Amino acid sequence: MATIARLAGVSPPTVSRVLNGRSDVAADTRRRVEQLLREHGYRRPGAILPSPRIEVVFYGLETNLAIEMMRGVQAVVNEHDLGLGFTEVPADPSARQRSWCDRLLTQRPTGVIIVHSQFTAEQHAQLAAGAIPLVAADPNGQPTQPVPSVSAANWQGAVAATRHLLELGHRQIGVIGGPVESLYARERMEACRAALEIAGVPLRPRLARTGEFSFESGLAHGSELLSQPDPPTALLCANDLQALGVCKAARQLGLRIPQDLSVVGFDGIDAGNWCDPALTTVRQPFRDIGAAAANLLLALIAGPVPALTRVELPTTLVVRDSTAPPRS
Amino acid sequence: MATIARLAGVSPPTVSRVLNGRSDVAADTRRRVEQLLREHGYRRPGAILPSPRIEVVFYGLETNLAIEMMRGVQAVVNEHDLGLGFTEVPADPSARQRSWCDRLLTQRPTGVIIVHSQFTAEQHAQLAAGAIPLVAADPNGQPTQPVPSVSAANWQGAVAATRHLLELGHRQIGVIGGPVESLYARERMEACRAALEIAGVPLRPRLARTGEFSFESGLAHGSELLSQPDPPTALLCANDLQALGVCKAARQLGLRIPQDLSVVGFDGIDAGNWCDPALTTVRQPFRDIGAAAANLLLALIAGPVPALTRVELPTTLVVRDSTAPPRS
Repeated sequence: MATIARLAGVSPPTVSRVLNGRSDVAADTRRRVEQLLREHGYRRPGAILPSPRIEVVFYGLETNLAIEMMRGVQAVVNEHDLGLGFTEVPADPSARQRSWCDRLLTQRPTGVIIVHSQFTAEQHAQLAAGAIPLVAADPNGQPTQPVPSVSAANWQGAVAATRHLLELGHRQIGVIGGPVESLYARERMEACRAALEIAGVPLRPRLARTGEFSFESGLAHGSELLSQPDPPTALLCANDLQALGVCKAARQLGLRIPQDLSVVGFDGIDAGNWCDPALTTVRQPFRDIGAAAANLLLALIAGPVPALTRVELPTTLVVRDSTAPPRS
Repeated sequence: MATIARLAGVSPPTVSRVLNGRSDVAADTRRRVEQLLREHGYRRPGAILPSPRIEVVFYGLETNLAIEMMRGVQAVVNEHDLGLGFTEVPADPSARQRSWCDRLLTQRPTGVIIVHSQFTAEQHAQLAAGAIPLVAADPNGQPTQPVPSVSAANWQGAVAATRHLLELGHRQIGVIGGPVESLYARERMEACRAALEIAGVPLRPRLARTGEFSFESGLAHGSELLSQPDPPTALLCANDLQALGVCKAARQLGLRIPQDLSVVGFDGIDAGNWCDPALTTVRQPFRDIGAAAANLLLALIAGPVPALTRVELPTTLVVRDSTAPPRS
């Protein structure tokens, strides 16, 4: 460590800070030290005896989905006698940046699965420098370096949902999207738009909204869309929570589902089955996504880093009671 | 180890099996070996450098509650720079007995929180022999040795729910309980019974049922209770899922909530807010339960084992739209 410090022109504690993944090191110092460490074949002691566990890191957690994904990961890691760690990144962005990355680098999990990630280039570089293998599930951000990832077929699912409404005879179809910064929310939105356009009933701007993945967002946008003169007869939602909010908005306006309004969600959360009417939705295979992410991660851990891998699992349209032909 | 083996009259591999928490050792042999190990001040090597992590083990997982509890545990373990592990015990009882205990003993977490546990005396002895500190949250079983535990005020919550219905004027009140083998389900059921009896409207056997903590159970028992001549005007349910099932049963029978039937749940899950009408319920502080369990566990890890500790956190009646006075 003294040698590296001398060559890099820094103090040994600075080298130690780099090795420990601390963020209080200037970016170019970190790069210089890391470069020297690599050149001298240094492996941090922790890397030789890592704590044998796979860590799953959640951003913007939707509770039901998280547990299904954990179940899928657990099934795989159990087979390999690894532990399973859980981290939720707090919603507060100012508090989040430093802590979870630093913590992971200190705790040395065998590998990390990041769910709904929005990690920054710096965080990615930090994890890469720590040599902790990383897989993303449903990545939302655009990491500067490629990260192997697992996702579901958002595009195909949204197309299937749109075609379902078209086949029922709807022509006044509205779409509520997810956050603009979410890649997969955009994918769903654009798939609806494309399917509508190809069917010759292009999405009208007055029937398209961008919302959040929440009940409250569905309630607000639903109320507004359904209060218009000539309102939509069907709404495609960014996820199930939003769709449940739309259902509440419809009831508040005295509209019956599915007689007066058809509603389609996305995800397949349990609550879609508990509400009345049961929600038509596009089911994502969260357990399979978790298992696939774990398998991909174990492949990364076992061997040389493969080329960028992307696994896309199928989604399934589940037709329940919230969709019907429009009243003529 | 050879000394212990000689004193115990067993082979060294048997001592090793006891140290590793394996279950293929006769109970009295295990006790004899453990006694000798204690007398000779033996600490297993793994115990000196445990993997720094708190493990949360879930039985019979309800997804929404689990994440809230994990959030509470995470807030505490983060402060102490510990990792957070997640284990779900599979529902299949034949597969479950051995694996999770053995796995924990191999992985050596710093401590274990068991949620909705039904662990056996043998499992408890196994964990005790492994010297892994243990706290139970919402314990369902009766471990043969005392385990510090954290729970919510089930009795007070169920009394508050019952009094709420009585104050609204209901006299035909039915109760659907949880599984008979669940201590806290029984606590809720008996609290309802006591509150009704004290109010002079004792629970009639024809209006009392024992079910499961599930939507399907609420649907089945609700359908049956509400199809009776002279049906109940209000139902107290063992949890929110069951209450949502009762709501569906009511709608199938053409009954309006709350005009024709009042329904009260227990837990305070998110879905109770997303359904229509929003569910009156008894909220449990799951995040606080997780945090309290983690703090209790850290106290156990830090110091000498305290006397049996039981922490009970308050529950809160949350009145929403599923309860109203009975039609006169």
